[in-house]
Amino acid sequence: MAQKPAKRLPPSPPPRAGEGREAAPSSRKTKGAARDDDRVITALELPVTGLTPAMQAYFDKCAEKLGFIPNVLKAYAFDMPKLEAFVAMYNDLMLAPAGLSKLEREMIAVAVSSHNRCYYCLVAHGAAVRSLADDPVLGELMVMNYRAARLDRRQRALLDFAVKLTAEPWQIEEADRNALREAGFTDRDIWDIAAVAGFFNMSNRIASATDMRPNSAYHGQKRE
Amino acid sequence: MAQKPAKRLPPSPPPRAGEGREAAPSSRKTKGAARDDDRVITALELPVTGLTPAMQAYFDKCAEKLGFIPNVLKAYAFDMPKLEAFVAMYNDLMLAPAGLSKLEREMIAVAVSSHNRCYYCLVAHGAAVRSLADDPVLGELMVMNYRAARLDRRQRALLDFAVKLTAEPWQIEEADRNALREAGFTDRDIWDIAAVAGFFNMSNRIASATDMRPNSAYHGQKRE
Amino acid sequence: MAQKPAKRLPPSPPPRAGEGREAAPSSRKTKGAARDDDRVITALELPVTGLTPAMQAYFDKCAEKLGFIPNVLKAYAFDMPKLEAFVAMYNDLMLAPAGLSKLEREMIAVAVSSHNRCYYCLVAHGAAVRSLADDPVLGELMVMNYRAARLDRRQRALLDFAVKLTAEPWQIEEADRNALREAGFTDRDIWDIAAVAGFFNMSNRIASATDMRPNSAYHGQKRE
Amino acid sequence: MAQKPAKRLPPSPPPRAGEGREAAPSSRKTKGAARDDDRVITALELPVTGLTPAMQAYFDKCAEKLGFIPNVLKAYAFDMPKLEAFVAMYNDLMLAPAGLSKLEREMIAVAVSSHNRCYYCLVAHGAAVRSLADDPVLGELMVMNYRAARLDRRQRALLDFAVKLTAEPWQIEEADRNALREAGFTDRDIWDIAAVAGFFNMSNRIASATDMRPNSAYHGQKRE
Amino acid sequence: MAQKPAKRLPPSPPPRAGEGREAAPSSRKTKGAARDDDRVITALELPVTGLTPAMQAYFDKCAEKLGFIPNVLKAYAFDMPKLEAFVAMYNDLMLAPAGLSKLEREMIAVAVSSHNRCYYCLVAHGAAVRSLADDPVLGELMVMNYRAARLDRRQRALLDFAVKLTAEPWQIEEADRNALREAGFTDRDIWDIAAVAGFFNMSNRIASATDMRPNSAYHGQKRE
Amino acid sequence: MAQKPAKRLPPSPPPRAGEGREAAPSSRKTKGAARDDDRVITALELPVTGLTPAMQAYFDKCAEKLGFIPNVLKAYAFDMPKLEAFVAMYNDLMLAPAGLSKLEREMIAVAVSSHNRCYYCLVAHGAAVRSLADDPVLGELMVMNYRAARLDRRQRALLDFAVKLTAEPWQIEEADRNALREAGFTDRDIWDIAAVAGFFNMSNRIASATDMRPNSAYHGQKRE
Repeated sequence: MAQKPAKRLPPSPPPRAGEGREAAPSSRKTKGAARDDDRVITALELPVTGLTPAMQAYFDKCAEKLGFIPNVLKAYAFDMPKLEAFVAMYNDLMLAPAGLSKLEREMIAVAVSSHNRCYYCLVAHGAAVRSLADDPVLGELMVMNYRAARLDRRQRALLDFAVKLTAEPWQIEEADRNALREAGFTDRDIWDIAAVAGFFNMSNRIASATDMRPNSAYHGQKRE
Repeated sequence: MAQKPAKRLPPSPPPRAGEGREAAPSSRKTKGAARDDDRVITALELPVTGLTPAMQAYFDKCAEKLGFIPNVLKAYAFDMPKLEAFVAMYNDLMLAPAGLSKLEREMIAVAVSSHNRCYYCLVAHGAAVRSLADDPVLGELMVMNYRAARLDRRQRALLDFAVKLTAEPWQIEEADRNALREAGFTDRDIWDIAAVAGFFNMSNRIASATDMRPNSAYHGQKRE
Repeated sequence: MAQKPAKRLPPSPPPRAGEGREAAPSSRKTKGAARDDDRVITALELPVTGLTPAMQAYFDKCAEKLGFIPNVLKAYAFDMPKLEAFVAMYNDLMLAPAGLSKLEREMIAVAVSSHNRCYYCLVAHGAAVRSLADDPVLGELMVMNYRAARLDRRQRALLDFAVKLTAEPWQIEEADRNALREAGFTDRDIWDIAAVAGFFNMSNRIASATDMRPNSAYHGQKRE
Repeated sequence: MAQKPAKRLPPSPPPRAGEGREAAPSSRKTKGAARDDDRVITALELPVTGLTPAMQAYFDKCAEKLGFIPNVLKAYAFDMPKLEAFVAMYNDLMLAPAGLSKLEREMIAVAVSSHNRCYYCLVAHGAAVRSLADDPVLGELMVMNYRAARLDRRQRALLDFAVKLTAEPWQIEEADRNALREAGFTDRDIWDIAAVAGFFNMSNRIASATDMRPNSAYHGQKRE
Repeated sequence: MAQKPAKRLPPSPPPRAGEGREAAPSSRKTKGAARDDDRVITALELPVTGLTPAMQAYFDKCAEKLGFIPNVLKAYAFDMPKLEAFVAMYNDLMLAPAGLSKLEREMIAVAVSSHNRCYYCLVAHGAAVRSLADDPVLGELMVMNYRAARLDRRQRALLDFAVKLTAEPWQIEEADRNALREAGFTDRDIWDIAAVAGFFNMSNRIASATDMRPNSAYHGQKRE
Repeated sequence: MAQKPAKRLPPSPPPRAGEGREAAPSSRKTKGAARDDDRVITALELPVTGLTPAMQAYFDKCAEKLGFIPNVLKAYAFDMPKLEAFVAMYNDLMLAPAGLSKLEREMIAVAVSSHNRCYYCLVAHGAAVRSLADDPVLGELMVMNYRAARLDRRQRALLDFAVKLTAEPWQIEEADRNALREAGFTDRDIWDIAAVAGFFNMSNRIASATDMRPNSAYHGQKRE
């Protein structure tokens, strides 16, 4: 429980995978608690490798659209098959057409990450909820305690299922699925809810296991 | 676990204690999830009463200094002895000269409130950490998971004690006090750490029990 | 988890705040496990200070009425503003006229302290339940497991709310408040239940953090 | 979580097993929360049966030595093989010569029952600790939080093992056994500690499952 | 949390109680993780003693009927009164005529042992469920998560009660007993359910405290 | 907590995705608790779709190599992008060359699934541990309680990290990573451990959310 060890970085750290792909982080405001978060992305020293053309194109698209490469992608970029599998699964779950809106999928992401107290995912996906909802406070509610939000029945059922599945997966039974059906979800939606909640239970653990740091740019996004 | 009931408010709600003391909330931006938070402060219908001169002066000072009256004060304002006792204890603990800095006291407040997932206190005191530290990200770290912050040994020991005392008070023993002493805290500091952590364990529960809503103004404070 | 360290007391300990205010503890029976509890009140070495006239009068009144000064007051007596704020809040919550009887407030105190396994509060407030109820066994039931007591619906709802608020404050919702309303409590009563439960969640933690010892006189009170 | 149901007893209840064996309970003071505890021993309606001569002799010996038959024995008396097996195991564990003193065995009983919040066992064995230790406060400490007691290293190790074994038996490993060995216990003592802790984990559950009530006489025993 | 210590066994270990009663374990297949489980039964070095004639007869009967002596009996065989009390209670609970079938009693044993993650009892009683049900999969379901089994209402109510009594005995109330009554159980059955669940809460803890190893023969029993 | 509802299946259920790819399940022994597990794979009614050529080839390879298509693949086969992303991630994590052996990866899978009490994954991956280790008992130990296994330091550190990451991901810190490094793991291995543990935290939840049933063929695999 002692303080964090001094980072085991050499005086002049070697570049990490994909690191040079965006404008130098020193040009952004990264003082204070986030000061190293755009430079030292995880607590692990992983090998440097080149991006495949497909992944290079994906990183370029991120940089163009977001202004930066999400650190989770840079963290995975030490190994192309892992990066590609992660990107394929993420994009299918969070961006493909589905019965759940993109906002609902991000609300699951944040409520699950709140249960697991995952710093990376709360920062990155909290910003996504703020933006998709055009409501800074909804993002805060998902981070802090979704039960305090004024949700309609559908969204409350969604998050109750996702958080119970996170906390006590062994207790999920037909009655829980029926509560979703009664709130208007189809069996296909139930799969998607389970898959998104499951995915963030995976990602939360990879982020916590590696002390993954969120890009500093997320913090200020959509605060008003 | 059903959705929130429609608020039991009459079409034209009566003023609540102290409510008229600041600029009309409708002049602020309170759309979205926080839209009623400056108007319907708790889930309880409590009697209206007048402020004592001392409390009126205190409210005036808050309005002048902060631009608004913190909702917790308005919530307590149905009963002057309760309000005065709360204000006296709060001001002594959080503002009086002590071995702990004001920032350290607010860090305890937020780390304890994070364990208890208290929406009101996380919003109000998260803003205080952001401001006192002049570091928006430190506030987020206290809200999300203080263990992910790069703290020095003193602050880490402080929060480890406060959060263990919150989670499992029956497990605190001499070894825990000695860990604080070894991190440089005096016995008087230990009392203060316990008192601040204890105070927010109280406040978190009063806020959760009454569904207390934070002033919408907190959300945007010190975000850069 | 090792044994308690030998107390860090010099051979001839300096007087602590307010310590000389009552008859010498050596005149009472304090052998066995409580043998030092009237003399070494906490594990902290705190400064000695004089009582304000108001607090001196209050201590005198305690000594006259109870035959002793409750150790929690002596523990707080190193700092007058803290003592005064504690006394003001305690007296308002536990003794002022309210919709809850004094016994009901003490039952909350003990059920909350039982969840938190707080030795000081269980001893002191267990004695209060025994006395106010004129029923030694009711005090034992509150200490051991309130669910085993034959309570009427009102008292059971009271304690179920207070203990849930203690154990999982983040789970309290409108349904919990409605359960109190259906058992006959007003919204004002709900505030008071929350405030008393909250207060003992604070006090339990201050007592546990400081290893506060109850006056030995409590143990034998109202045993038949 | 509603109030206790009205007892399902006919106006004139039939005698239960062994019930007539002692002086009429109405001659004792059983007002208040314990008022029915000498008459309605469990929430179950079990058949009445006669005692075997051996068990009759045992009950007679209890009545002579204690002044009453412990309710747990009366509860088991609906079936002689069950009563006999329980008595044989109890007497071997708690009364036979062993490396653990009788007081230490009773301290385990109460610390385990405190973790499990078992009303019957806390009352009956709390009284035993008070008596065997000739120290009313030690009994209260075992009931409330054994960690607050000033125990020597041996007794602390004993209770730490017993309570960990109660709370998380799957976590017990060689290191835990070695902690007992280092505190001076033999392997044979370790068996006995496990067996006593295990026995009360059984008895706590039988008592809680049947709402077993302790004899009212225990409450006042050895209070000074 | 380090690895298991090298067993503290002398090069040529002395015989343990009852050890020579069956065919030499080396004649069975005990390679791999179970390789020592028929020879080193617990982590404790306990005295060797002779069996009483009654216990010798019982061991002989086990050897004849099962082909081996269950290790729990050998573990208890260092002390005849303990062995006899254990055998008497076990045989009464698990084998005597009762409202619960033998399979139902074994299902309780395994579901309780699964909650407590007790290796010995899961192996030995998992084999019993497989055999009594003539269904290898039912045994796996009891070991892994009884909630995933397709149980009828009676068996589900049985296991829900037994597992709640295991996990949170302090929460068992009349409503829980009524759920059993509504599923068709008599008050006498409720006693038996509590007694079997209680017994395995005891045995799980004795086995975990001593690192008791199951006979290797159980693993292959009734796998098809 | 009531019994399982009668399956909502029409008298003549439509074929599900990929279902016809193997020998008719009725030709296998699927009586008892697993009787429907090869036919009704989840509690959800999901659309039927055709396999892409790549997935068809993969299913054919499974059928040839294993003798059946694992039910998790059939469950995912309602949507090709989801199936392909799952297969890509699974094969990379569990089968690609890495610093962890395949057995070690399966041991993580089962220890994580044991914490989460996931029936599907315990059955399928328990069989994998039995086979890869050529040791039926090691599989049982991973299912029941990995702490009871005689593991070397490397494997114990591996599972301690994976299970802590499963139970309390917010508590993982540099000290936990260092424990892995001291047991001989590289930073790249730490990523892989986190990724495998994370993957099964996802899969456990998808399986529990959908009541996914394991192929009956797993139960008998490698039992001797």
